[in-house]
Amino acid sequence: MRATVLYGAGDVRVETVPDARLSEPTDAVIRVTRAAICGSDLWPYRTMPPSDTGRRMGHEFIGIVADAGTDVRTLKVGDVVVSPFLVSDGTCVICREGLTSACLHGGRFGFDGVDGGQGEAVRVPHADGTLVVLPVGVDDARFPSLLTLTDVMATGHHAARSANVGPGKTAAVVGDGAVGLCGVIAARRLGAERIILVGHRPDRIKLGGAFGATDVVSERGDEAVEHVRALTDGFGAHAVLECVGLDESIRIALSIARPGGAVGRVGLPQEASIPEGLLTFFNNLTIAGGPAPARAYIPELLPDVLDGRIEPGRVFDRVTNLDGVPDGYRAMNDREAIKVMIEL
Amino acid sequence: MRATVLYGAGDVRVETVPDARLSEPTDAVIRVTRAAICGSDLWPYRTMPPSDTGRRMGHEFIGIVADAGTDVRTLKVGDVVVSPFLVSDGTCVICREGLTSACLHGGRFGFDGVDGGQGEAVRVPHADGTLVVLPVGVDDARFPSLLTLTDVMATGHHAARSANVGPGKTAAVVGDGAVGLCGVIAARRLGAERIILVGHRPDRIKLGGAFGATDVVSERGDEAVEHVRALTDGFGAHAVLECVGLDESIRIALSIARPGGAVGRVGLPQEASIPEGLLTFFNNLTIAGGPAPARAYIPELLPDVLDGRIEPGRVFDRVTNLDGVPDGYRAMNDREAIKVMIEL
Repeated sequence: MRATVLYGAGDVRVETVPDARLSEPTDAVIRVTRAAICGSDLWPYRTMPPSDTGRRMGHEFIGIVADAGTDVRTLKVGDVVVSPFLVSDGTCVICREGLTSACLHGGRFGFDGVDGGQGEAVRVPHADGTLVVLPVGVDDARFPSLLTLTDVMATGHHAARSANVGPGKTAAVVGDGAVGLCGVIAARRLGAERIILVGHRPDRIKLGGAFGATDVVSERGDEAVEHVRALTDGFGAHAVLECVGLDESIRIALSIARPGGAVGRVGLPQEASIPEGLLTFFNNLTIAGGPAPARAYIPELLPDVLDGRIEPGRVFDRVTNLDGVPDGYRAMNDREAIKVMIEL
Repeated sequence: MRATVLYGAGDVRVETVPDARLSEPTDAVIRVTRAAICGSDLWPYRTMPPSDTGRRMGHEFIGIVADAGTDVRTLKVGDVVVSPFLVSDGTCVICREGLTSACLHGGRFGFDGVDGGQGEAVRVPHADGTLVVLPVGVDDARFPSLLTLTDVMATGHHAARSANVGPGKTAAVVGDGAVGLCGVIAARRLGAERIILVGHRPDRIKLGGAFGATDVVSERGDEAVEHVRALTDGFGAHAVLECVGLDESIRIALSIARPGGAVGRVGLPQEASIPEGLLTFFNNLTIAGGPAPARAYIPELLPDVLDGRIEPGRVFDRVTNLDGVPDGYRAMNDREAIKVMIEL
C-alpha cells in the first residue's frame, strides 16, 4: 500500500510500504477514505533530522473497516469509522476516568509499528476502544466535519472544557489556527456569551466570525493583552483557550484571564515551565488542559456534527489526494492553507 | 492601644500605637479577643530589611464590635465577629463571582492605614462585606477553631476545592504545617477516601492522623514521589493540596498527581514560574488555587465548626498573650510550635 513517510525536515514522501494487516486479535484494519494534515505534523516537518528509515505520518483519519481481529466486538467489516488521534483501550482505569488520551495501553499512530493515518490503510490497535462507528454511508457531505472529530474539533472542545466555558461567560481564544477556530465553535456551543478571537490572519479571522467570534484582537504581546482588557471592563475573560503553545501565547493567555478565571491549554508547549506563576497564583487562575481525550468527546460532539449544528469541517480550505500530500505540507507550512484534507 | 509591629528580620515588638477608630462610614472597629500568628508572618520575620517605621502585623483575629460607621447595616456594637484575612466589600463583580480575595475594593490588614490583627483593636474597612457575626458568646470553647476560619482552615479548604477533592477520591497533602493539617480536615470533609500526608515532623504527622490522614509519606524529593506512587498503584493521587510554596514542594505536588488529576496550590510561591510544565501538559493536570476567598467560605465551614464536626483549632499548640507575641514568632520560626494563638 502507499503511505506518507517523513525523512527529515521538508522531506515528506508518499511511497509504497508494507500492507496494513492484523497483528493482535483486538486489531482492526481500516481502509482510509479521508485523512488530514495536522498543525502538529508541521513540527517534525520543520525540525526532524535526516533519517534513513523515515517516520510514518498522520493521525487524523476516517475509513471503512476492511478486516477485524477475532476479539473485536463492536465493529464489522464495512462499517464506516472515525478514529481519534490516539489509541485507547477504553477499559483501563484511566480511560474509565475519562482521560482516554492517557490510556495505560494507548499508543500513537505512526509509532511503534502502528501505521500513520496519511496512507491507504491503518492497523488500529484496541479497535473496540479506539474507533467509533459512524451512522453514515461511504459518501457523505459531512465527512469534512466528521474528520475534525479525530483531533482539531475535539482539541478545541478540550480547550473550552478545560477553561470552564459556560453560559453567559466571556471566552477568549488565543490562536487562529484550525484548533483555535474549533475552539471558537466549542466556546459558542458551550454557551459563551462573548467570544474574543486573538489572531491576525484575515482569512482565519473571517472564518472565526462565521463560527461565532464576537470580537477580534489582532495585536500581539502586551497590546493584545491591553485590547482584551479594554473589551472586558479591565477584568479579562472568564475562560481562555490557549491554542498555540508558544511562550508568548501562553503569557497572553494567562494575562487576559480574569481573576478566578481559567486557561485551557491545548497548544503543545514549547517551553518546559509555565510562565507568570505569581500572576497566576494571586489571580487564582486555573490552568488545565493537555492532549485532548478525543475518544471520550466524540459521543458528545457527533450528534451536533450529524445534525449540522456545528460545521468544523469548514477549517479545511484545501483538498488533495495522496499524491498531493507533500504539497499539502508545504502549503500549510507556508500558511497558504489553514488545513488540508486528503481524499483517497 | 497596643499592637504588634515588625521592625526588621527577627525584630518584632509590641508597642503603643494610635487607637483604632472609624475613618469611613462603612468601617467598624473591632476589639480583638483572639488573634493568631500565621506561617506567612514568618516570611517578613525572616527577611524584612530594618525599618524605622515598622510594619503592623497580623491578619487573623476574632473580636467584638466596639464601634460601627453610619453605613454599616449587618453588625451592631457588641456582636462577636470573625474576620477573614483580607478585606472585601462583598458587592463588586469579582466578589459576586465568589472570589472575595480579589475584591476590587479589598485590602490587607497591616497595610495602607489598616490596622494589623495582632493588637488590641482593628479598624475593619467594608465591615458589612468583610466580617461575619458569630452566634456565640464572648467566651466559647470553640474559639480556637472559629479563629482558624480567618485563614488556615479556609486556606486548607481552598486547596481541597482547587484540587477537586470529592467522594471516593485519593487526596495527597504536601506540607504538614497548620495549612496542610487543615487541608487534611478539608479533604476528609469533602469525602476523600484516602488522604496521604506528605510531611516529616512527628508531632504534626500525629495530628494529621487525628484529622483523617490515612497514610504518611515522610521522605523528601524523588523518594516522596516514589512512595506516593507506590501507595496509589503507580498512578498518583486524584487531588493534591500544595500547602508549602517552595519549588521542591510544587515539583512533588505536580509529580504525585495522577493523569487527569488536579493540584490546588495555596502555599505562597517562592518562584516566579511553575515547574514541570510539560509533565503537567501531557498528564492533563489542572493547577488551581491562590489566596483563599476565606470570606466566601466561612458560611460553608462555620456550621461544621459550631457543631464540632471539625476541630481545626487543634493546630494551636501554644497560647500566649500580647506580651508573648515576640516569643510566639520565635517559637514558630524555630518549629517549637505549630501555631500560636494570642488571647487578649
